[in-house]
Amino acid sequence: MEVALIVGGGPGISASCARLFAKGGMRVGVAARDPDKPVLQELEKAHGVRRYACDAGEPAEIARLFESVARELGTPRLVVHNIDGRVPGIFRKKITEADPAMALETLRNSAFSAFLVGQEAARRMLQNEAGPDGAKGTILFTNASAALKGFPASGAFAMACQAKAGLAQSMARELWPQGIHVANVPIDAAIGWTQEDGTRAHRLAGTAVDDNMADPDRIAETYLHLHRQHRSTWTFEVVLRPWVEKW
Amino acid sequence: MEVALIVGGGPGISASCARLFAKGGMRVGVAARDPDKPVLQELEKAHGVRRYACDAGEPAEIARLFESVARELGTPRLVVHNIDGRVPGIFRKKITEADPAMALETLRNSAFSAFLVGQEAARRMLQNEAGPDGAKGTILFTNASAALKGFPASGAFAMACQAKAGLAQSMARELWPQGIHVANVPIDAAIGWTQEDGTRAHRLAGTAVDDNMADPDRIAETYLHLHRQHRSTWTFEVVLRPWVEKW
Amino acid sequence: MEVALIVGGGPGISASCARLFAKGGMRVGVAARDPDKPVLQELEKAHGVRRYACDAGEPAEIARLFESVARELGTPRLVVHNIDGRVPGIFRKKITEADPAMALETLRNSAFSAFLVGQEAARRMLQNEAGPDGAKGTILFTNASAALKGFPASGAFAMACQAKAGLAQSMARELWPQGIHVANVPIDAAIGWTQEDGTRAHRLAGTAVDDNMADPDRIAETYLHLHRQHRSTWTFEVVLRPWVEKW
Amino acid sequence: MEVALIVGGGPGISASCARLFAKGGMRVGVAARDPDKPVLQELEKAHGVRRYACDAGEPAEIARLFESVARELGTPRLVVHNIDGRVPGIFRKKITEADPAMALETLRNSAFSAFLVGQEAARRMLQNEAGPDGAKGTILFTNASAALKGFPASGAFAMACQAKAGLAQSMARELWPQGIHVANVPIDAAIGWTQEDGTRAHRLAGTAVDDNMADPDRIAETYLHLHRQHRSTWTFEVVLRPWVEKW
Repeated sequence: MEVALIVGGGPGISASCARLFAKGGMRVGVAARDPDKPVLQELEKAHGVRRYACDAGEPAEIARLFESVARELGTPRLVVHNIDGRVPGIFRKKITEADPAMALETLRNSAFSAFLVGQEAARRMLQNEAGPDGAKGTILFTNASAALKGFPASGAFAMACQAKAGLAQSMARELWPQGIHVANVPIDAAIGWTQEDGTRAHRLAGTAVDDNMADPDRIAETYLHLHRQHRSTWTFEVVLRPWVEKW
Repeated sequence: MEVALIVGGGPGISASCARLFAKGGMRVGVAARDPDKPVLQELEKAHGVRRYACDAGEPAEIARLFESVARELGTPRLVVHNIDGRVPGIFRKKITEADPAMALETLRNSAFSAFLVGQEAARRMLQNEAGPDGAKGTILFTNASAALKGFPASGAFAMACQAKAGLAQSMARELWPQGIHVANVPIDAAIGWTQEDGTRAHRLAGTAVDDNMADPDRIAETYLHLHRQHRSTWTFEVVLRPWVEKW
Repeated sequence: MEVALIVGGGPGISASCARLFAKGGMRVGVAARDPDKPVLQELEKAHGVRRYACDAGEPAEIARLFESVARELGTPRLVVHNIDGRVPGIFRKKITEADPAMALETLRNSAFSAFLVGQEAARRMLQNEAGPDGAKGTILFTNASAALKGFPASGAFAMACQAKAGLAQSMARELWPQGIHVANVPIDAAIGWTQEDGTRAHRLAGTAVDDNMADPDRIAETYLHLHRQHRSTWTFEVVLRPWVEKW
Repeated sequence: MEVALIVGGGPGISASCARLFAKGGMRVGVAARDPDKPVLQELEKAHGVRRYACDAGEPAEIARLFESVARELGTPRLVVHNIDGRVPGIFRKKITEADPAMALETLRNSAFSAFLVGQEAARRMLQNEAGPDGAKGTILFTNASAALKGFPASGAFAMACQAKAGLAQSMARELWPQGIHVANVPIDAAIGWTQEDGTRAHRLAGTAVDDNMADPDRIAETYLHLHRQHRSTWTFEVVLRPWVEKW
């Protein structure tokens, strides 16, 4: 049974991935600062998803996380880093007004945690037996449109997203030839989804609730496609955006 | 029943797409300069694929092709432009030595035929009823690594590939909001595959016959994934390359 | 005395380059379909600029042009390809409405003429003695923002611009190590300039006449800077855009 | 008299910029962790360059630096961030072996210090009177080829360089319309230069001492050209690489 680990525990992409991977026959773990939030408890109940407490910006906590997952679920063949990392106070701040401590914290939450997760995932996956298609594992980094383009009044976030993209590129060039598929997935969209009671949830208040927002269930499908790609035809970067998005 | 049209009729990506799309329940047409080559006859026998004769660089022939396909199979919801277009004599020629007439012919075969196919596909798909997910169709352009990077001694091919990429980008920004998914798929690899007798075929003589070459059956899977993506999460560009490729 | 050849003879970038290069001590030739237009006659009178008639999309005419320039001015060390090439009827046309013959003509005018000019320039410059800094010459391609991004309703122009960019890239990788500096210069702006009578001329009617448009005299300064760069620190691409441009 | 501030005090780009700017009539300050190193003392003696002690990754030190410069030299119209920032122990380390603390330190030294310098420069320049060409100042970020491409075994450096590039992009889109020219300058080369005693200095031991390395005096010329560009034709990114470099 394949093991998947998702670092970041929101109700959008993380939850959709957890559900899809579990339905696809994987044993799934999700790590979050607060592993007791309702969405994660539901995932446990409905899909047997294992919950882990972890501050992904702390080296020791990431080490402990992978240790626990290995012991309890097995070594992951699929790891998703799905952390946005923006400190709220940095959002839409002009360069002259952005708080330096918040900028550094955003870098730590996002890019540095990606470094830690990617490093530990690589260490462990390299020990995996090669699968039938020769691959040892897949590491996916969720990213944002700021990875593609630094927008005004978001210097700290542009730093963090492009740092993560640079890490992913370097890791891909290093690890692909060792059998690990690393990919960067910028989501150029607001994310929205239908809740169990039929109402629509979405990250950005005030946005129209239609398919002009990325549906995390569909994002998860592309993540799974990336994991299933044969190593003769791997993809490094997939940008996902809704049909009506300007770019 | 969905209709797929593949323009370009080689034994690699075109044949793999034709097989996969047919197995997936589509009615499939393939257009080639010589529709009687063995690989296409086999596709007809084994999968009911319809063969069409067409010089894709001729406006009148492209118009006639789409007319015939519409009449005999129905309006396509999936069109793949899979033509490399290089005039052999232009291959690996220095800029000082490349024959201008061959350079222009390469542009016509590749980029201009992509324009004609994309134009006619768009005209017809816009008349389609929207599907359950709101989309009217998918247009995919196979491309090469020269679309990403102009290599030395291949100026004419770099022109053709980047022209095609530019066309695809423009069409995507124009047609996505009208429900047509346009994508560019650079294959950064030699392409190789196993033949029915178990031996290995590949485009570049002298290349090792392993999964360091892109397997066209796997390429076709990503093409189908692109076609199946929900319009809330479309992808414009997917680069496919083998795990051991330098980039 | 250095020789500069500018292919394309409009009153904007070409005229500004001709003036600046002549003032900088070069012998300057300008080639245009109609070499008798007033702006070119003025350049001749004021700066001794030599005028040449040439359809840059015709191989034989380009060969003849370089032959004449070599005989009358000397072998150029600086060649600028400054042709937009858009057939007017293709401007802002949807993909479904663009005339294929005009699309092909745009490709020929723009990208194919760049190929011809670049090829002939390379052939001749390779015969140059290396200058004090080791370089044999500079070939500059003016380009447009469509080289960077394919906009909607301009598929043919996106093809042409990205084709030209691809050509430039390939030529740069091939010719830099042979001592020829090839560069691509996308101008992401409308172009406007002050005329001798103090009024303002600009390419796009209805645009405000201020420094929100690129001043061709300033563009010429960057062209000269590229030509003067030492070969230890060459630049391949310079995008020029006004301070207020959105990108 | 214009004021220029260079943050980072090595004998390569920083020293060349200081000399060129001083010769061009500017009052120049250089900030470094150790302002007493010989190269900076020489710059003071020969060109009146003012030396400042500063750890550029510390918010309070950057604030103090700009305060001192404003008081002693005047508000800068040109600021260069020229810090590589790599902790030596992280150099060429595989992702599985790179020390997380060093990775974070590299991010802090490079990208975060760029944030602090850029922020403080922006705050002060926005108070400048617009110059004759309407501009209030120029902020230049030296970068490396890792800003363009994440190489294997250098994940931490790729993070830092692309973070800095993302910051620069965001700042450019935000500050250009306010009259501040922000640019990113990746140097895709080893850097080498001739010393006063005629011998050749260069950063990478064992590299041939020829113009296959970027000459910092020539780099400084392009920096000055960027500063002198008119705001109708600004450039965001200039990559500098030697004629023989592979890219």
